[in-house]
Amino acid sequence: MTVTVVGLGLIGGSVARDLHRSGFAHSIVGVDSSRENCTTALEMGLVGSVASLEEAVKAAEVVILAVPVNVIVKILPKVLDLTTPGQTVIDMGSTKQAITEVVKQHPNRYRFVAAHPMAGTERSGPTAAVERLFEGRIAILCDIADSAPDAVAEAKRLFSTGLRMNIVTMGAAAHDIHAAYISHLSHVISYALALTTLDKERDVNTLFSMAGGGFSSTARLAKSDATMWTPIFLQNRDHLLEAIAAYRQHLDNLAHAIEQGDEIKVNELIGQANRIRDLLP
Amino acid sequence: MTVTVVGLGLIGGSVARDLHRSGFAHSIVGVDSSRENCTTALEMGLVGSVASLEEAVKAAEVVILAVPVNVIVKILPKVLDLTTPGQTVIDMGSTKQAITEVVKQHPNRYRFVAAHPMAGTERSGPTAAVERLFEGRIAILCDIADSAPDAVAEAKRLFSTGLRMNIVTMGAAAHDIHAAYISHLSHVISYALALTTLDKERDVNTLFSMAGGGFSSTARLAKSDATMWTPIFLQNRDHLLEAIAAYRQHLDNLAHAIEQGDEIKVNELIGQANRIRDLLP
Repeated sequence: MTVTVVGLGLIGGSVARDLHRSGFAHSIVGVDSSRENCTTALEMGLVGSVASLEEAVKAAEVVILAVPVNVIVKILPKVLDLTTPGQTVIDMGSTKQAITEVVKQHPNRYRFVAAHPMAGTERSGPTAAVERLFEGRIAILCDIADSAPDAVAEAKRLFSTGLRMNIVTMGAAAHDIHAAYISHLSHVISYALALTTLDKERDVNTLFSMAGGGFSSTARLAKSDATMWTPIFLQNRDHLLEAIAAYRQHLDNLAHAIEQGDEIKVNELIGQANRIRDLLP
Repeated sequence: MTVTVVGLGLIGGSVARDLHRSGFAHSIVGVDSSRENCTTALEMGLVGSVASLEEAVKAAEVVILAVPVNVIVKILPKVLDLTTPGQTVIDMGSTKQAITEVVKQHPNRYRFVAAHPMAGTERSGPTAAVERLFEGRIAILCDIADSAPDAVAEAKRLFSTGLRMNIVTMGAAAHDIHAAYISHLSHVISYALALTTLDKERDVNTLFSMAGGGFSSTARLAKSDATMWTPIFLQNRDHLLEAIAAYRQHLDNLAHAIEQGDEIKVNELIGQANRIRDLLP
């Protein structure tokens, strides 16, 4: 089958690579507003050809949108305008409510499957594409009752057979709440840590060389691109602000126990946090 | 030479392994209040023998303290009581002011070198010991004017030749400020994130399986042991609280921009945070 991938960055590039490698797609058509990304993706063999959005949508059985979420809400209605009953459109955005909302009344809404493959790195662009980025991770499909059964089946086949992901289904609102806590909050935290340390440590070259693996791990997500993350934060604003408020309470609680020199309380809070050991690999 | 390692956990075990492997020490004597740790360290070949603190200090040219910082302030004066002019005592604690303060007036203070090798993992105990944990990392030596030149030379040789680290020297107060920002704050942040998410996500097994690499990276340090970290937080309380306050300002600033839906400001803050790319590998 022919798959069109719109957006040839880390996610789109990695999807293209794995769908081709796994044999899910025999032909990949790429779309990207950056001529440089198109050239790179062709040179890297991520896509077989590049085309305009209109041509590329027409050419494919499955159309994947792997652009920033503010671009998804802009182009998804246009893509659905072009979509015919045999086609399936799948987005890869990290928010789901704003995206499903914008096509709620679209006559071709049923050809669209709202998805979020929970995988990525802090890098961006086609050169950041990696093989098996998605393998073993969770792909969340949202509001599938609003999609045609054959479109859902195609999306499930793509994520499970093509990308070797485990599939979970839930409502768009539930997704956005969980994503706020499990993904978006981590990015806010990491950006704030980077800003704090960059601000404090003027003599940065010497001092960052001091940093052990711990700092690098906690600050890694702060390398993530604004083009992708600003619109995620803004689209998921309410849930994210709730998550930040909850986080601040735990932070204040821990800071207060430290300020009081309350050894028992600090120990207890760290012990509670340590339960994460059982849940994270 | 014979080296005594007091505390056979992640740090002590890893130091013992590398000092023996590199040929810096032909014989390693271990000390640990846990009989189980002693047995494990012997079985793993991390140490050649175990002994009481008193015997082990007498047996060695170099004595390394790799126990939690609250234990270091307790046993360092006792170790220095036993120390003779030919011996060097080096601690590996993550705080330096409280530790140097407690032996300021000790007649054998000059045999002690206050050190902090900036390396570690979130694991603990002798089974967490890994080869080359320290290689290429920074070892900070503090207040070296208070140590005998031959003791400083021995410590430098140990960290550079034995553990292949890069050495930086600074005052204990400067160390504690930098450590607050570059290491201790990351742990506070990670504990608070783990507490927030564990608290929110009741159906944890399903939901944590959603977590991509980003969450795991940011929450990794929350696996770190309370036995080690509670005393670090309490000993470095003032600098750490200052770092937390600075961090909260940046967090609030970012949250405010998100709340306002201020795309330009959010973009700008993320762009500033992205400068961390140039500083972290």
